[in-house]
Amino acid sequence: MSEENKLSVLVVGGGGVGTIVAVNLEAGGHAKVTLVLRSNFSKVSRDGFSIRSVDHGNLNGWRPHEVVDQVPAIGFGKPGFDTVVCCTKNIQDSTPSIEELIRPAVTPGYTTVVLIQNGLNIELPLVAQFPQNVILSGVSFMGSHEPEPGIIEHDFEDKLVVGAFRNPGTSAALSNARARDFVGHYSAGGKTVCEYTADANRSRWEKLVYNATMNPICAILRTDTATLRLSDSIENLVRPAMEEIRAAASANGYNLDASIAQRMIDMDPMEIFFKPSMCMDALKGNLIEFENLVGEPLRAGKKHGVAMPVLTVIYDMCKMLQWQLKAAREGRSQEDMLKVYDSGKP
Amino acid sequence: MSEENKLSVLVVGGGGVGTIVAVNLEAGGHAKVTLVLRSNFSKVSRDGFSIRSVDHGNLNGWRPHEVVDQVPAIGFGKPGFDTVVCCTKNIQDSTPSIEELIRPAVTPGYTTVVLIQNGLNIELPLVAQFPQNVILSGVSFMGSHEPEPGIIEHDFEDKLVVGAFRNPGTSAALSNARARDFVGHYSAGGKTVCEYTADANRSRWEKLVYNATMNPICAILRTDTATLRLSDSIENLVRPAMEEIRAAASANGYNLDASIAQRMIDMDPMEIFFKPSMCMDALKGNLIEFENLVGEPLRAGKKHGVAMPVLTVIYDMCKMLQWQLKAAREGRSQEDMLKVYDSGKP
Repeated sequence: MSEENKLSVLVVGGGGVGTIVAVNLEAGGHAKVTLVLRSNFSKVSRDGFSIRSVDHGNLNGWRPHEVVDQVPAIGFGKPGFDTVVCCTKNIQDSTPSIEELIRPAVTPGYTTVVLIQNGLNIELPLVAQFPQNVILSGVSFMGSHEPEPGIIEHDFEDKLVVGAFRNPGTSAALSNARARDFVGHYSAGGKTVCEYTADANRSRWEKLVYNATMNPICAILRTDTATLRLSDSIENLVRPAMEEIRAAASANGYNLDASIAQRMIDMDPMEIFFKPSMCMDALKGNLIEFENLVGEPLRAGKKHGVAMPVLTVIYDMCKMLQWQLKAAREGRSQEDMLKVYDSGKP
Repeated sequence: MSEENKLSVLVVGGGGVGTIVAVNLEAGGHAKVTLVLRSNFSKVSRDGFSIRSVDHGNLNGWRPHEVVDQVPAIGFGKPGFDTVVCCTKNIQDSTPSIEELIRPAVTPGYTTVVLIQNGLNIELPLVAQFPQNVILSGVSFMGSHEPEPGIIEHDFEDKLVVGAFRNPGTSAALSNARARDFVGHYSAGGKTVCEYTADANRSRWEKLVYNATMNPICAILRTDTATLRLSDSIENLVRPAMEEIRAAASANGYNLDASIAQRMIDMDPMEIFFKPSMCMDALKGNLIEFENLVGEPLRAGKKHGVAMPVLTVIYDMCKMLQWQLKAAREGRSQEDMLKVYDSGKP
């Protein structure tokens, strides 16, 4: 494809997942990617990325079409982006929100927004902000992380499931066509599996069977999925929580196969003692994205009267863990915390 | 009291609580104490204890009547102990069990056994082992720990509630009289509060309102009771769990006052950011005594059909935490764990 015919894509978030998404889009030859970086910008703009990828091999000094340290503003004759792909985490109350962050780069009624992010109801603030834009769902099963700035280790093969979110201001036919187009662009390099789904939320609920249960349980107990399987925690904690998610999915119109819990339990290879994302984030002192992974499916189930006693405790423990992570990040002293406490007394 | 009229007392466990119990019994002048030490024996037999006590002041090089490194065997003309006081933790599956540990020092039908330990049903194995001995309950509210071997920091005042456990092979009147006697000996120094209770299990259920809830929640989340109160975890996690304990107590015949949850929530002074015993043990890599503190009240409630969804998850998370602590103490490698796992496959 000639340079001027290439899709103009902005990828927001150049960590483990976002960087491999950028690599794959450029490898396919259908897209020129502008990648928005934060903490690793100076390192990458100087040296490029060092990538060890199960799909793409070793790439040293890799750079996309362009790297920038903030979302570029379009307008005044500057052409807009055809597609904006968000690969950041969804952290509640973070400033700016994703919709505010990408707004300068989104042409109303034109740009397609792709959310390669986990969890339920992530599209709602974007639908509200961009009522006339196609919003796509990307559920990624790749395993990739950034142990140091600019160093990407991509261990589990990229598999992406793409579908359209419902946006009342756009036509469903157009949205579905755009989802199929994106699958085509993402598959062009032939090195990854990218599938179209007509039912975006079904694939989200399926992944939640793992992400609302094993992921937060590992974060709370600072452990890995192999250790959960070695102990009796699978039967005590994990499977009951998974069945609560399945009941919530069912109450919301998504009947998940009875075998899904066991499949998710067996998913990670034992020998790597895999620590899921929330656990890694907590250990690194990052905030955890528990509201879309645990809170939203919990609320979606409770709204329909589904009993979710295990998920409720997992959620409240995640809240407490997040409180501790925030306090540590903000460097709050015990003295300061007591002052706030005393001033709140009647 | 002359030396030969003094009560002969064996105190098992010379950590934070056991040492202060020994100090107080000797300070009262009614007892000569033989103290059984383990990890700190060589240090203490050489230098004595260094004690900073809110009740007894600073004691340097303090030693009781005798320190020993194992429970002495009586018999063959050696006089038995009048009283054996157990101040160790109750860890399930630990070897030897408490009843095996103290058996050499207990004269059947004669020695009074006092359990200054937390939790429910701790007396059952001792009643089975010593069917004709008086078994007393001591619920301690002191705060005392041993940051280094032989160094005791006693910060919260000693308060001890003593009553008789039910032992079908002994007379209730005798057991109650012995409990009152022990209160007299323990109070003789005038420096501590020691109260008699006619209902030993009531005081245990009361303390469980704290010990089955705030204690394990702090252990699981590696936090302290002040931080729980600063966040919204009290209303989300702690109070619901406390109300489940109150319901279980009620189903077992102990109606606890509705105000007890709030009293237990407010118990620890905010400014010390107090980490309860299970949290301290987990942080130090010690095993946690969760079966008598969480498991037994949970089973006691469930037996009567009490719904205990929050306690159930807390219990299962404690089990997982204990699994991790055991694996670490035993130095199990990931390789070894996988071998065990693979060999268990069908």
